[in-house]
Amino acid sequence: MVKKDKSRRTEILEKAAILFHQKGYAATSIRDIAREMKMESASLYNHIQSKQEILQAILLPIAHRYTQGIKDISSSPLTSIQQLERIIADQVQITIQNTDAVSLVPNEWVHLENNKEHDALQEFLDLRNFYEKEFKHIFQKCIKDGYLKNVNIDIAVFSILSTLRWLYSWYSKNKNVNPLVLETELINNLIGGIRRWTADGERRTTDGGRRTADD
Amino acid sequence: MVKKDKSRRTEILEKAAILFHQKGYAATSIRDIAREMKMESASLYNHIQSKQEILQAILLPIAHRYTQGIKDISSSPLTSIQQLERIIADQVQITIQNTDAVSLVPNEWVHLENNKEHDALQEFLDLRNFYEKEFKHIFQKCIKDGYLKNVNIDIAVFSILSTLRWLYSWYSKNKNVNPLVLETELINNLIGGIRRWTADGERRTTDGGRRTADD
Repeated sequence: MVKKDKSRRTEILEKAAILFHQKGYAATSIRDIAREMKMESASLYNHIQSKQEILQAILLPIAHRYTQGIKDISSSPLTSIQQLERIIADQVQITIQNTDAVSLVPNEWVHLENNKEHDALQEFLDLRNFYEKEFKHIFQKCIKDGYLKNVNIDIAVFSILSTLRWLYSWYSKNKNVNPLVLETELINNLIGGIRRWTADGERRTTDGGRRTADD
Repeated sequence: MVKKDKSRRTEILEKAAILFHQKGYAATSIRDIAREMKMESASLYNHIQSKQEILQAILLPIAHRYTQGIKDISSSPLTSIQQLERIIADQVQITIQNTDAVSLVPNEWVHLENNKEHDALQEFLDLRNFYEKEFKHIFQKCIKDGYLKNVNIDIAVFSILSTLRWLYSWYSKNKNVNPLVLETELINNLIGGIRRWTADGERRTTDGGRRTADD
């Protein structure tokens, strides 16, 4: 019985994420979600307390997933440039696996609320700040380690994170893309231009090997 | 008298753009705009007919400005890669000069309406489609002309336009940046990674000269 309830709740969260993605959180009602579940609104309240609870149950796990990903990567023995590549790949993975939930991250977090039981808005902002700080830190290490050119970190990080942030929107319309093609193209687009090249025109590769310039 | 009226209208549009940027179009009332202008709402209606008219008067000129920019650049004698760089520079310029109006482009266009007098929503979407098509066309030419690697055009164009689209948000918090630094760094971040390099590790430069790999 508990198990059945749990999967029902998961299904509600998934359907709600789709509706929030399509119509926005503000314009979606509990009744819309119930209709999508083929349930009465009253029955829906057996599984969830409020629309706010649904938003929190979608957004906070995603925010924790990003943060856990970057924590695992940054504390791994990978080199700094491998870490940066891996973080981009991780964002692609998260976006492909949770497109609807990820679509809520750029804008809909403003609807999160702090209340006595749970400061959901604060928790989300703390996770986001942690992520951006950690991302900049790894980016800085890549420059220090000689993998990246000495570019303006603020501008470069903004540029990379903008693309990753809106990837869900592109992916929603291009779901037939090969995830590995997407990952590889994005890593090249996003950091290929600021990679440091050695004097003879070859590029430092992540495995310490050498690659010719035009590959 | 006409001149005074005209500048008053311009002032209303500027103040409205700031409020729409800060609070969103939906959450901003005519009363909010009047308060910002230190006017009565009734007096405001001497200059504009509705909130919808204000939104149209902000968004459509900006959309036309983007389109005119890309038209001028693509019909110029510049090489394809010079055109691509110039278009990025043009977006930076537009964003710096009209940050509040530009901030409405990614999301607030959904509030544009079609009506008997003017199909504003359709006009906006047509301009946006034209821009994206033209951008892809120039990008394609850069590959054909050998300036860019044979990358996935859809992914690369999505990535570049994402950064440019959200530049207003970064710029709003970093207004003291040197516009030329911003322009140069972004051109390098966005297309440096997909530039084609010659076999000896030198890069085709836009002026036909040669540049060493590490500059």
